[in-house]
Amino acid sequence: MNSFDALWSAIADLGRSPTSGGYRRYALTRTDHDLREWFAAEATTRGLDLTTDRMGNQWAWWGDPDARPGVVTGSHLDSVPDGGAYDGPLGVVSAFAALDRLRERGITPARPLGVVNFGDEEGARFGVACAGSRVITGAMSAERALGLTDADGVSMAEALRSAGRDPESIGADPETLRRVGAFVELHVEQGRGLIDLDRPVAIGTDIWPHGRWRIDFTGEANHAGTTRLEDRHDAMIGLASTVLAARAAAEANGCVATVGKTQITPGGVNAIPSAATAWLDVRGADEARVRTTVADIAAAAGGFDAAVREESWTPVTRFDDQLIKELGTILPDAPLLGTGAGHDAGILAGAGIPAAMLFVRNPTGISHSPAEFAEREDCLAGVDALADVLAELVGAGS
Amino acid sequence: MNSFDALWSAIADLGRSPTSGGYRRYALTRTDHDLREWFAAEATTRGLDLTTDRMGNQWAWWGDPDARPGVVTGSHLDSVPDGGAYDGPLGVVSAFAALDRLRERGITPARPLGVVNFGDEEGARFGVACAGSRVITGAMSAERALGLTDADGVSMAEALRSAGRDPESIGADPETLRRVGAFVELHVEQGRGLIDLDRPVAIGTDIWPHGRWRIDFTGEANHAGTTRLEDRHDAMIGLASTVLAARAAAEANGCVATVGKTQITPGGVNAIPSAATAWLDVRGADEARVRTTVADIAAAAGGFDAAVREESWTPVTRFDDQLIKELGTILPDAPLLGTGAGHDAGILAGAGIPAAMLFVRNPTGISHSPAEFAEREDCLAGVDALADVLAELVGAGS
Repeated sequence: MNSFDALWSAIADLGRSPTSGGYRRYALTRTDHDLREWFAAEATTRGLDLTTDRMGNQWAWWGDPDARPGVVTGSHLDSVPDGGAYDGPLGVVSAFAALDRLRERGITPARPLGVVNFGDEEGARFGVACAGSRVITGAMSAERALGLTDADGVSMAEALRSAGRDPESIGADPETLRRVGAFVELHVEQGRGLIDLDRPVAIGTDIWPHGRWRIDFTGEANHAGTTRLEDRHDAMIGLASTVLAARAAAEANGCVATVGKTQITPGGVNAIPSAATAWLDVRGADEARVRTTVADIAAAAGGFDAAVREESWTPVTRFDDQLIKELGTILPDAPLLGTGAGHDAGILAGAGIPAAMLFVRNPTGISHSPAEFAEREDCLAGVDALADVLAELVGAGS
Repeated sequence: MNSFDALWSAIADLGRSPTSGGYRRYALTRTDHDLREWFAAEATTRGLDLTTDRMGNQWAWWGDPDARPGVVTGSHLDSVPDGGAYDGPLGVVSAFAALDRLRERGITPARPLGVVNFGDEEGARFGVACAGSRVITGAMSAERALGLTDADGVSMAEALRSAGRDPESIGADPETLRRVGAFVELHVEQGRGLIDLDRPVAIGTDIWPHGRWRIDFTGEANHAGTTRLEDRHDAMIGLASTVLAARAAAEANGCVATVGKTQITPGGVNAIPSAATAWLDVRGADEARVRTTVADIAAAAGGFDAAVREESWTPVTRFDDQLIKELGTILPDAPLLGTGAGHDAGILAGAGIPAAMLFVRNPTGISHSPAEFAEREDCLAGVDALADVLAELVGAGS
């Protein structure tokens, strides 16, 4: 019996925009609530013990993790604006499907097995990615999390209250983390690594160092029709030059750089911009090269007297060497891949929990878009791989 | 007696932002209402006949314009976002002050003299400049005007209703226009022409040809961390290149070009833009050169497969030759200047009404900004010049 298809189709329509075909599954919304209800129901159906930690992440346990730390798999169910179906949900659905497969094989785990649904991984609503895992590991304080606001000015504290939860209760949760002996997150690949290698599943080795910078350009408001070019201080010119400089610097240093968000002031068609802000995202396999890329971009922006401020920085996250080695033994055909994307697995690794990832081939290479995809055959190969990994890690019980 | 100062200070605080020091006087708002009340009170104080046309523009008449078409002066009282104090209000205040001066001189006009306050000249709220004069001249249909919406999605029809006015009543108003034998609009200069010429007042000869274009770049949404540079279709790159191409094309052709407004989709820090839109404003003294500038920019944007669409185009507007000649005789020291800014005087000229302008020196050269300025001495010189012009145009009565 294959439970993957039923699990997958149950949530296929939740939070899907009929116009774009993309998903809008944001933290602490009605859609988020519906997805959590689905998760709880699937846990109950399987006789798993459902718990919710101090940030609302859901954990479904087979066995008692307080008796002995367990092996956990899972991912998240939220999305970016108009995101794809696979980023997150594939990991949660595959977790339940792999657990089902272990039972079909008659395995009784020696170690407890857990399935997790991390909340607010994309940070689409409140701006900080991996908010669920960051708060329980202490990587983000409760105070900072509660003060984050969405585009409508609603704070996370208010949103928690609206969702019937107590903002006072959120915070680091060492008790929950103590139960996690190892974490393996399955995720759709967000690039073309497996296409090029012609394989369905890879083992994730590390998350590239990455950061976000805010670049503020200052101009002088003036009339677009009457101000001579030589009298202008147009903040848009600095921004445009820096966007191109960012692409060139990334190319020169073998990194990726993106300006995906800008703000132009006052923003009138006939007004010379008095201010312009660009948000810059830079990542790469090598930290020194990422730093060089950012320095090159900052130098270009500096030519326009811009102010460059680091908003976040995450050094390289290496997944657990021993765990990667075990995964390599269990899945001898799976290549090793690093990734430029952040994940809850990276946050747990940063908190000292042995963690690793599995990636499933994405034939478009596209993610964070309705075009994100994985062939059913590859999804099932992912479930098989995850089941093999879990079977080995939990061991045969008595 | 000099009435300028009292008139000026009466409205100095209306709609002024305490934080930016700029003005936010938008059509059909409370501030707009207060400014109209002030205009009506000044008209009443002077015993002028106040009428409101089919678009709500206010006309205050000394004498009966139905008996004989009159000479009209005035301007507008609304502003761009965080605009300056002078753009518009200087023309209205100077109109009343010049009328006062004629009376001090004991002049009884042979022709009626009118003072006008045009509504919504900047188009800051509903997006179309000179909406007041465009509707009464038929340059914009009532249907189009009523359907325009502001940033909150409120239509002009709804805004009119909220202001206690009947949307059904707006439209072309030939009866009102028939009363206008000539129109002279005094306005603060929005460039550095009079600084360079070292004169306080100029005669406006023409409004440069100008237009607005919308340029849409299409990219492909994807993850900013995991998508290789060579696999990207980043709409922001085309936009940035085109912003720089616009500046270069304007320089090469002796025009001005501005990108003051953009929209980036989806607009996430870690999302490669799937779409980007730039609004382009191009103007210049010579129509062929403006067209060449736009063609150069369109070619640059075309290199990124962008779609370029003309949103508006206004050919050169030459003010009335005979009227300019008369003004030159009355003000022999005033230089002749063209302008890149649109004005209600241009709309009336386009409707066949003899029109011209007077410009008052702006020592910053800056407009549409709190830094917009005119020295009191130059303002008074403007009032004197306007009074001299009006005295001559209305003639001595019997």
